[in-house]
Amino acid sequence: MTVICVLTTGDQEFSVRRARRADVPHLVALLADDPLGRGRETAELSAYEAAFAEIDASDEQLLVCLTTSSDEVVGTMQLTFTRGLSHGGGLRGQLEAVRVHSSYRDRGLGRLFVQWAIDECRGRGCELVQLTSDRSRVDAHRFYERLGFVDSHRGLKLAAPAH
Amino acid sequence: MTVICVLTTGDQEFSVRRARRADVPHLVALLADDPLGRGRETAELSAYEAAFAEIDASDEQLLVCLTTSSDEVVGTMQLTFTRGLSHGGGLRGQLEAVRVHSSYRDRGLGRLFVQWAIDECRGRGCELVQLTSDRSRVDAHRFYERLGFVDSHRGLKLAAPAH
Repeated sequence: MTVICVLTTGDQEFSVRRARRADVPHLVALLADDPLGRGRETAELSAYEAAFAEIDASDEQLLVCLTTSSDEVVGTMQLTFTRGLSHGGGLRGQLEAVRVHSSYRDRGLGRLFVQWAIDECRGRGCELVQLTSDRSRVDAHRFYERLGFVDSHRGLKLAAPAH
Repeated sequence: MTVICVLTTGDQEFSVRRARRADVPHLVALLADDPLGRGRETAELSAYEAAFAEIDASDEQLLVCLTTSSDEVVGTMQLTFTRGLSHGGGLRGQLEAVRVHSSYRDRGLGRLFVQWAIDECRGRGCELVQLTSDRSRVDAHRFYERLGFVDSHRGLKLAAPAH
Protein backbone atom coordinates (compact mmCIF):
# COMPACT_ATOMS: atom_id res chain seq x y z
CA MET A 1 0.00 0.00 0.00
CA THR A 2 3.03 2.29 0.51
CA VAL A 3 1.21 4.61 2.92
CA ILE A 4 3.22 7.80 3.33
CA CYS A 5 1.21 9.38 6.12
CA VAL A 6 -1.98 8.82 8.14
CA LEU A 7 -4.21 11.86 8.71
CA THR A 8 -6.83 11.77 11.46
CA THR A 9 -9.79 14.15 11.55
CA GLY A 10 -12.66 13.63 13.99
CA ASP A 11 -12.87 9.85 14.39
CA GLN A 12 -11.87 9.04 10.80
CA GLU A 13 -8.50 8.02 9.48
CA PHE A 14 -7.27 8.86 6.00
CA SER A 15 -4.05 7.90 4.28
CA VAL A 16 -1.76 9.68 1.85
CA ARG A 17 -0.17 7.17 -0.50
CA ARG A 18 1.65 7.17 -3.81
CA ALA A 19 -0.79 6.90 -6.72
CA ARG A 20 -0.91 3.70 -8.77
CA ARG A 21 -1.98 3.16 -12.34
CA ALA A 22 -5.28 1.63 -11.20
CA ASP A 23 -6.11 4.93 -9.48
CA VAL A 24 -6.00 6.94 -12.70
CA PRO A 25 -9.77 6.82 -13.47
CA HIS A 26 -10.54 7.94 -9.90
CA LEU A 27 -8.00 10.75 -10.11
CA VAL A 28 -9.41 11.97 -13.40
CA ALA A 29 -12.93 11.93 -11.91
CA LEU A 30 -11.68 14.12 -9.04
CA LEU A 31 -10.00 16.54 -11.47
CA ALA A 32 -13.14 16.76 -13.59
CA ASP A 33 -15.49 17.33 -10.60
CA ASP A 34 -14.55 20.99 -10.37
CA PRO A 35 -15.86 24.26 -11.85
CA LEU A 36 -12.67 24.72 -13.92
CA GLY A 37 -11.82 21.05 -14.46
CA ARG A 38 -15.21 20.25 -15.93
CA GLY A 39 -14.42 21.93 -19.23
CA ARG A 40 -10.90 20.66 -19.71
CA GLU A 41 -10.71 17.06 -18.51
CA THR A 42 -12.20 15.49 -21.58
CA ALA A 43 -9.28 13.48 -22.99
CA GLU A 44 -9.31 9.70 -23.47
CA LEU A 45 -8.23 7.69 -20.43
CA SER A 46 -5.19 6.46 -22.38
CA ALA A 47 -3.78 10.03 -22.40
CA TYR A 48 -4.00 10.14 -18.61
CA GLU A 49 -2.44 6.69 -18.28
CA ALA A 50 0.50 7.72 -20.43
CA ALA A 51 0.92 10.88 -18.34
CA PHE A 52 0.71 8.82 -15.16
CA ALA A 53 3.54 6.53 -16.33
CA GLU A 54 5.76 9.54 -17.03
CA ILE A 55 5.00 11.20 -13.68
CA ASP A 56 5.51 7.94 -11.81
CA ALA A 57 8.93 7.41 -13.44
CA SER A 58 10.20 10.88 -12.50
CA ASP A 59 12.32 11.44 -9.39
CA GLU A 60 11.18 15.05 -9.46
CA GLN A 61 7.51 14.26 -9.09
CA LEU A 62 5.22 12.67 -6.53
CA LEU A 63 1.57 12.07 -7.37
CA VAL A 64 -0.46 11.04 -4.33
CA CYS A 65 -3.92 9.81 -3.43
CA LEU A 66 -5.78 10.70 -0.27
CA THR A 67 -7.80 7.62 0.68
CA THR A 68 -10.31 6.45 3.29
CA SER A 69 -9.53 3.47 5.54
CA SER A 70 -11.19 1.27 2.89
CA ASP A 71 -8.84 2.73 0.22
CA GLU A 72 -11.48 4.80 -1.52
CA VAL A 73 -9.72 7.67 -3.32
CA VAL A 74 -11.14 10.97 -2.01
CA GLY A 75 -8.32 13.37 -2.82
CA THR A 76 -5.22 13.94 -4.93
CA MET A 77 -2.26 16.25 -5.30
CA GLN A 78 0.79 16.45 -7.55
CA LEU A 79 4.07 17.61 -6.01
CA THR A 80 7.02 18.68 -8.17
CA PHE A 81 10.48 19.25 -6.72
CA THR A 82 12.58 21.63 -8.79
CA ARG A 83 16.19 22.55 -8.20
CA GLY A 84 16.92 26.13 -9.16
CA LEU A 85 20.04 28.22 -9.51
CA SER A 86 18.37 31.21 -7.83
CA HIS A 87 17.78 31.44 -4.07
CA GLY A 88 21.27 30.08 -3.44
CA GLY A 89 20.73 26.94 -5.51
CA GLY A 90 17.56 26.12 -3.57
CA LEU A 91 15.00 23.38 -4.10
CA ARG A 92 11.38 24.39 -4.43
CA GLY A 93 8.25 22.30 -4.07
CA GLN A 94 5.29 23.04 -6.27
CA LEU A 95 1.74 21.84 -5.63
CA GLU A 96 -0.56 21.28 -8.58
CA ALA A 97 -3.97 19.74 -9.08
CA VAL A 98 -4.96 19.68 -5.40
CA ARG A 99 -8.43 18.17 -4.99
CA VAL A 100 -10.54 16.79 -2.15
CA HIS A 101 -13.89 15.15 -3.02
CA SER A 102 -16.85 17.42 -2.24
CA SER A 103 -18.28 14.89 0.26
CA TYR A 104 -15.09 15.08 2.32
CA ARG A 105 -14.70 18.83 2.64
CA ASP A 106 -15.39 21.12 5.62
CA ARG A 107 -13.89 18.79 8.19
CA GLY A 108 -10.31 20.03 8.17
CA LEU A 109 -9.09 17.24 5.90
CA GLY A 110 -7.85 19.56 3.14
CA ARG A 111 -5.87 21.50 5.69
CA LEU A 112 -4.19 18.34 7.00
CA PHE A 113 -3.52 17.21 3.42
CA VAL A 114 -1.77 20.45 2.43
CA GLN A 115 0.06 20.58 5.77
CA TRP A 116 1.36 17.08 4.98
CA ALA A 117 2.54 18.35 1.57
CA ILE A 118 4.40 21.27 3.16
CA ASP A 119 6.11 18.85 5.57
CA GLU A 120 6.98 16.49 2.70
CA CYS A 121 8.57 19.40 0.79
CA ARG A 122 10.51 20.46 3.90
CA GLY A 123 11.67 16.88 4.46
CA ARG A 124 13.08 16.79 0.93
CA GLY A 125 14.97 20.01 1.53
CA CYS A 126 12.71 22.55 -0.17
CA GLU A 127 13.15 26.09 1.01
CA LEU A 128 10.04 27.30 -0.73
CA VAL A 129 6.62 25.75 -1.41
CA GLN A 130 4.62 27.39 -4.17
CA LEU A 131 1.41 27.05 -6.11
CA THR A 132 -0.75 29.12 -8.39
CA SER A 133 -4.48 29.36 -7.98
CA ASP A 134 -7.01 30.69 -10.46
CA ARG A 135 -8.29 34.14 -9.43
CA SER A 136 -11.83 32.77 -9.35
CA ARG A 137 -10.98 30.36 -6.50
CA VAL A 138 -11.45 32.92 -3.72
CA ASP A 139 -12.13 30.31 -1.02
CA ALA A 140 -8.93 28.48 -1.97
CA HIS A 141 -6.86 31.65 -1.50
CA ARG A 142 -8.20 32.13 2.03
CA PHE A 143 -7.54 28.44 2.72
CA TYR A 144 -3.89 28.67 1.60
CA GLU A 145 -3.31 31.97 3.37
CA ARG A 146 -4.51 30.41 6.64
CA LEU A 147 -1.84 27.75 6.08
CA GLY A 148 0.86 30.42 5.82
CA PHE A 149 1.08 30.97 2.06
CA VAL A 150 1.66 34.57 1.03
CA ASP A 151 -0.11 36.02 -2.01
CA SER A 152 3.07 37.74 -3.21
CA HIS A 153 3.14 36.92 -6.92
CA ARG A 154 1.10 37.10 -10.06
CA GLY A 155 0.60 33.82 -11.89
CA LEU A 156 0.88 34.42 -15.63
CA LYS A 157 -0.13 31.73 -18.11
CA LEU A 158 0.05 31.43 -21.87
CA ALA A 159 -1.86 28.75 -23.73
CA ALA A 160 0.62 27.34 -26.24
CA PRO A 161 -1.08 24.80 -28.44
CA ALA A 162 1.30 23.07 -30.84
CA HIS A 163 1.79 24.77 -34.21
CA MET B 1 29.05 25.70 -28.25
CA THR B 2 25.68 23.95 -28.64
CA VAL B 3 23.88 27.09 -29.80
CA ILE B 4 20.14 26.51 -29.62
CA CYS B 5 18.99 29.67 -31.34
CA VAL B 6 20.38 32.93 -32.76
CA LEU B 7 18.44 36.11 -31.93
CA THR B 8 19.02 39.26 -33.98
CA THR B 9 18.11 42.73 -32.77
CA GLY B 10 19.24 45.84 -34.60
CA ASP B 11 22.60 44.88 -36.08
CA GLN B 12 23.65 42.62 -33.17
CA GLU B 13 23.46 38.87 -32.93
CA PHE B 14 22.92 37.01 -29.69
CA SER B 15 22.81 33.30 -29.02
CA VAL B 16 20.79 31.11 -26.70
CA ARG B 17 22.86 28.14 -25.60
CA ARG B 18 22.77 25.53 -22.86
CA ALA B 19 24.59 26.74 -19.73
CA ARG B 20 27.92 25.14 -18.77
CA ARG B 21 29.52 24.85 -15.36
CA ALA B 22 31.99 27.61 -16.22
CA ASP B 23 29.04 29.99 -16.69
CA VAL B 24 27.85 29.61 -13.08
CA PRO B 25 29.63 32.70 -11.64
CA HIS B 26 28.25 34.83 -14.49
CA LEU B 27 24.75 33.46 -13.97
CA VAL B 28 24.88 34.13 -10.23
CA ALA B 29 26.04 37.70 -10.92
CA LEU B 30 23.02 38.19 -13.19
CA LEU B 31 20.65 36.79 -10.56
CA ALA B 32 22.15 39.03 -7.87
CA ASP B 33 21.99 42.21 -10.00
CA ASP B 34 18.29 42.66 -9.31
CA PRO B 35 16.20 44.49 -6.67
CA LEU B 36 14.89 41.20 -5.25
CA GLY B 37 17.91 39.00 -6.00
CA ARG B 38 20.33 41.32 -4.22
CA GLY B 39 19.18 40.18 -0.77
CA ARG B 40 18.98 36.48 -1.43
CA GLU B 41 21.88 35.47 -3.69
CA THR B 42 24.50 35.34 -0.98
CA ALA B 43 25.38 31.62 -0.88
CA GLU B 44 28.86 30.25 -1.55
CA LEU B 45 29.63 29.52 -5.20
CA SER B 46 29.87 25.78 -4.38
CA ALA B 47 26.13 25.74 -3.55
CA TYR B 48 25.38 27.13 -7.02
CA GLU B 49 27.76 24.67 -8.67
CA ALA B 50 26.06 21.74 -6.94
CA ALA B 51 22.66 23.07 -8.02
CA PHE B 52 23.95 23.52 -11.58
CA ALA B 53 25.07 19.87 -11.73
CA GLU B 54 21.63 18.70 -10.63
CA ILE B 55 19.79 20.95 -13.10
CA ASP B 56 22.14 19.96 -15.94
CA ALA B 57 21.53 16.24 -15.26
CA SER B 58 17.73 16.57 -15.34
CA ASP B 59 15.76 15.78 -18.50
CA GLU B 60 13.00 17.99 -17.14
CA GLN B 61 15.13 21.12 -16.97
CA LEU B 62 16.95 23.41 -19.38
CA LEU B 63 19.15 26.20 -18.05
CA VAL B 64 20.29 28.57 -20.79
CA CYS B 65 22.59 31.50 -21.29
CA LEU B 66 21.92 34.42 -23.60
CA THR B 67 25.29 35.47 -25.01
CA THR B 68 26.84 38.09 -27.29
CA SER B 69 28.74 37.07 -30.42
CA SER B 70 31.91 36.99 -28.28
CA ASP B 71 30.18 34.58 -25.85
CA GLU B 72 29.74 37.12 -23.05
CA VAL B 73 26.82 35.98 -20.88
CA VAL B 74 24.20 38.76 -20.83
CA GLY B 75 21.06 36.83 -19.88
CA THR B 76 19.74 33.62 -18.40
CA MET B 77 16.56 31.63 -17.95
CA GLN B 78 15.61 28.31 -16.43
CA LEU B 79 12.92 26.24 -18.14
CA THR B 80 11.21 23.32 -16.40
CA PHE B 81 9.00 20.87 -18.29
CA THR B 82 6.45 19.17 -16.06
CA ARG B 83 4.04 16.44 -17.07
CA GLY B 84 0.74 16.70 -15.22
CA LEU B 85 -2.32 14.53 -14.89
CA SER B 86 -4.64 17.54 -15.21
CA HIS B 87 -5.36 19.26 -18.54
CA GLY B 88 -5.68 15.87 -20.22
CA GLY B 89 -2.25 14.69 -19.11
CA GLY B 90 -0.63 17.80 -20.57
CA LEU B 91 2.96 19.00 -20.40
CA ARG B 92 3.59 22.50 -19.05
CA GLY B 93 6.63 24.67 -19.39
CA GLN B 94 7.63 26.92 -16.52
CA LEU B 95 10.00 29.87 -16.76
CA GLU B 96 12.04 30.84 -13.71
CA ALA B 97 14.89 33.23 -13.02
CA VAL B 98 14.62 35.18 -16.29
CA ARG B 99 17.26 37.90 -16.42
CA VAL B 100 18.79 40.17 -19.05
CA HIS B 101 21.77 42.32 -18.07
CA SER B 102 20.79 45.96 -17.50
CA SER B 103 23.12 47.14 -20.30
CA TYR B 104 21.27 44.97 -22.82
CA ARG B 105 17.68 45.97 -22.05
CA ASP B 106 15.32 48.25 -24.00
CA ARG B 107 16.31 46.92 -27.41
CA GLY B 108 13.73 44.14 -27.73
CA LEU B 109 16.20 41.43 -26.70
CA GLY B 110 14.17 40.26 -23.68
CA ARG B 111 11.13 39.93 -25.88
CA LEU B 112 13.03 37.75 -28.39
CA PHE B 113 14.47 35.70 -25.53
CA VAL B 114 11.07 34.93 -23.98
CA GLN B 115 9.55 34.34 -27.42
CA TRP B 116 12.30 31.78 -28.00
CA ALA B 117 11.36 30.12 -24.67
CA ILE B 118 7.69 29.94 -25.66
CA ASP B 119 8.67 28.33 -28.97
CA GLU B 120 10.98 25.88 -27.19
CA CYS B 121 8.14 24.88 -24.84
CA ARG B 122 5.78 24.45 -27.82
CA GLY B 123 8.39 22.38 -29.63
CA ARG B 124 8.61 20.02 -26.67
CA GLY B 125 4.84 19.59 -26.65
CA CYS B 126 3.85 21.97 -23.84
CA GLU B 127 0.26 23.12 -23.96
CA LEU B 128 0.79 25.79 -21.35
CA VAL B 129 3.69 28.10 -20.50
CA GLN B 130 3.59 29.62 -17.03
CA LEU B 131 5.57 31.77 -14.67
CA THR B 132 5.05 33.71 -11.50
CA SER B 133 6.28 37.24 -11.05
CA ASP B 134 6.59 39.20 -7.83
CA ARG B 135 3.83 41.81 -7.51
CA SER B 136 6.47 44.53 -7.29
CA ARG B 137 7.72 43.82 -10.84
CA VAL B 138 5.06 45.93 -12.55
CA ASP B 139 7.11 46.46 -15.73
CA ALA B 140 7.66 42.71 -16.02
CA HIS B 141 3.91 42.06 -15.92
CA ARG B 142 3.31 44.48 -18.79
CA PHE B 143 6.19 42.86 -20.69
CA TYR B 144 4.74 39.35 -20.31
CA GLU B 145 1.21 40.48 -21.09
CA ARG B 146 2.43 42.00 -24.37
CA LEU B 147 3.85 38.56 -25.17
CA GLY B 148 0.43 36.96 -24.68
CA PHE B 149 0.59 35.83 -21.07
CA VAL B 150 -2.67 36.22 -19.13
CA ASP B 151 -2.62 37.37 -15.51
CA SER B 152 -5.21 34.75 -14.51
CA HIS B 153 -3.76 33.30 -11.31
CA ARG B 154 -2.47 34.24 -7.90
CA GLY B 155 1.03 33.01 -7.10
CA LEU B 156 1.14 31.85 -3.48
CA LYS B 157 4.46 31.11 -1.79
CA LEU B 158 5.40 29.72 1.59
CA ALA B 159 8.93 29.95 2.92
CA ALA B 160 9.68 26.53 4.34
CA PRO B 161 13.09 26.49 5.97
CA ALA B 162 14.09 23.02 7.19
CA HIS B 163 12.99 22.13 10.73
